[in-house]
Amino acid sequence: MSLKVVRWHDGVVQMLDQRRLPGTVEYLELQTVEEVGEGIAHMAVRGAPAIGIAAAYGIALAARSITATTPDDWMEAFQKAKQGLAATRPTAVNLVWALDRMEACARRLLDRDGDFANTRSLLDEGLLAEAREIDEEDEWMCRRMGDFGAVLVPDGASVLTHCNAGGLATGGYGTAVGVIRSAWTRHSNLHVYVDETRPLLQGARLTAWELSQEKIPYTLITDNMAGWFMRCKKIDLAVVGADRVASNGDVANKIGTYSVAVLCHHHGIPFYVAAPFSTVDMSLRSGEQIPIEQRNPNEVLAVQGNRVSPHDARAANPAFDVTPHELISAIITERGVLRPPFTESLATAAAHPLERSETAR
Amino acid sequence: MSLKVVRWHDGVVQMLDQRRLPGTVEYLELQTVEEVGEGIAHMAVRGAPAIGIAAAYGIALAARSITATTPDDWMEAFQKAKQGLAATRPTAVNLVWALDRMEACARRLLDRDGDFANTRSLLDEGLLAEAREIDEEDEWMCRRMGDFGAVLVPDGASVLTHCNAGGLATGGYGTAVGVIRSAWTRHSNLHVYVDETRPLLQGARLTAWELSQEKIPYTLITDNMAGWFMRCKKIDLAVVGADRVASNGDVANKIGTYSVAVLCHHHGIPFYVAAPFSTVDMSLRSGEQIPIEQRNPNEVLAVQGNRVSPHDARAANPAFDVTPHELISAIITERGVLRPPFTESLATAAAHPLERSETAR
Repeated sequence: MSLKVVRWHDGVVQMLDQRRLPGTVEYLELQTVEEVGEGIAHMAVRGAPAIGIAAAYGIALAARSITATTPDDWMEAFQKAKQGLAATRPTAVNLVWALDRMEACARRLLDRDGDFANTRSLLDEGLLAEAREIDEEDEWMCRRMGDFGAVLVPDGASVLTHCNAGGLATGGYGTAVGVIRSAWTRHSNLHVYVDETRPLLQGARLTAWELSQEKIPYTLITDNMAGWFMRCKKIDLAVVGADRVASNGDVANKIGTYSVAVLCHHHGIPFYVAAPFSTVDMSLRSGEQIPIEQRNPNEVLAVQGNRVSPHDARAANPAFDVTPHELISAIITERGVLRPPFTESLATAAAHPLERSETAR
Repeated sequence: MSLKVVRWHDGVVQMLDQRRLPGTVEYLELQTVEEVGEGIAHMAVRGAPAIGIAAAYGIALAARSITATTPDDWMEAFQKAKQGLAATRPTAVNLVWALDRMEACARRLLDRDGDFANTRSLLDEGLLAEAREIDEEDEWMCRRMGDFGAVLVPDGASVLTHCNAGGLATGGYGTAVGVIRSAWTRHSNLHVYVDETRPLLQGARLTAWELSQEKIPYTLITDNMAGWFMRCKKIDLAVVGADRVASNGDVANKIGTYSVAVLCHHHGIPFYVAAPFSTVDMSLRSGEQIPIEQRNPNEVLAVQGNRVSPHDARAANPAFDVTPHELISAIITERGVLRPPFTESLATAAAHPLERSETAR
């Protein structure tokens, strides 16, 4: 997966427009932080880790346009840009995590002694370097998750995945798809069932495309087929990504994930979540506290812009749902495979971050 | 619901082209039994009872074109036409049921004494009358099912339905949607959640359209949202149609029905099936014996003809699944509401058909 979802080129943020995949591979050229915010809100980029990376580059872009002449004024402008980006998508916590990390970086640089004019150029370079590090770290963490998760995928297994938790949702390689890639590398003997994932069809458009590129065999199915294929014993395990994990192990992920988890539970099939630890929000007691983004009903009333329902139809469009921890077999992170009880395993992992020398190459 | 899905006009079978709904209301003009067969196979008409009605009119049309001069030759040609129609869709048993009934009618008329030339014109008129009776009986039975089923829908209930088991799937009024109509007539206080029902979107296109016409309040959802709305306590019961019911109560219905049933079971929500008794196939011990139609994968790879997946993607497309009887709370028929154990309740109902005076107006 050499395709980067977001990249920095000559003072411009280039964002792969995933809405046009798989038909067209095209990067948006974003000149301002507002344009980056729109790209996130309108889902040119999507996937919790990728949103974090996009926000990091976006705030690095914002920093360069700040005209302040004092540290306080600079930080005020930085905060404004940060808040604008943070408001674009409410559910994925990686967005806020990445922005907080960028702010911490900015504060370290601002704390240095010396002339503010010098600090300014340090900020510009330092924030860009930090965004790049978030991006590269993410890919490295995905590969680590892949290695941990591959052990859970038996030789010859049939794996269900929902939405796209692939290279397109991350800095590269993917979380759930990363586990699939690593398992494929290990024994080249598996089959993937890909939920198409209405309304925005990230499974059909993005996951299928990534698997096609890697020549990993897969079958695309409509979301309502998964249960039947489980009943027919065609599916051995499910692995999905996450947009936010609460401290008790409840997981917010793309709408439909909860149904997959219930169906797995009913059929005695393991249900795994793969996510970098930046997706874990230890401040939340349970998934009930995770805000669920309600998107425009037109995404349901139409498919890819073509109206399919009556002109006066009304639709609901929650973008995510919450899977309660009791339906989750394990959470695969770069810190290891966490098992129930998640309150304990997540707390232990939270207390033991990877060393800097481990996380950066 | 005054719209008839199939009608006879001046020696031509007119078939409402449901593939073009809700955008366009247009009838196909079918001149031959082969054209009627294509209309069924390519799903201009769909829904188990409606398929039976279409086949009945189709075979009545076929009869008129038979040029045989002896009863034996006539019956041979009739059988050929019947087999052609029977092969169009394998899962719904109403198709074969209606054709068998038309054949029985033909045999009654052929058994009469007299000149074959006279019998010929009796056959033409008698078969058309029988097709019309199947059509009208179906609507009457749907209204009876509606009355039985409405009792199961509490005042203020929120009802989930999958696919279209409405007037468009029957001679009028509908089976599952008929239950909803009758409940609405009774207390005008309910809300319907409509699964869009990929791949062919019968929920978004047809059920939503029927509910819009009746001004029954509804919310369209993608198939993968149903579980989440159950978890959020937004759904009180589910009611769906059926394409074939085995003697033990296992039910074949549109793909995705099984998942809805599992989700209802997990949440303690009643799951009802509404179907005329012609949908019951007492010759089958269980649902495992029901043939499942595998349709063209392009229906999954594209949405309404617009490709959404990579050019080399493969897809599965089972048109139906089988819900095991243990997940079904009751089967609503024109012979009453049947409860588990279904082996007993179905056998009792099978032994007590409605009297002719009851079924015909």
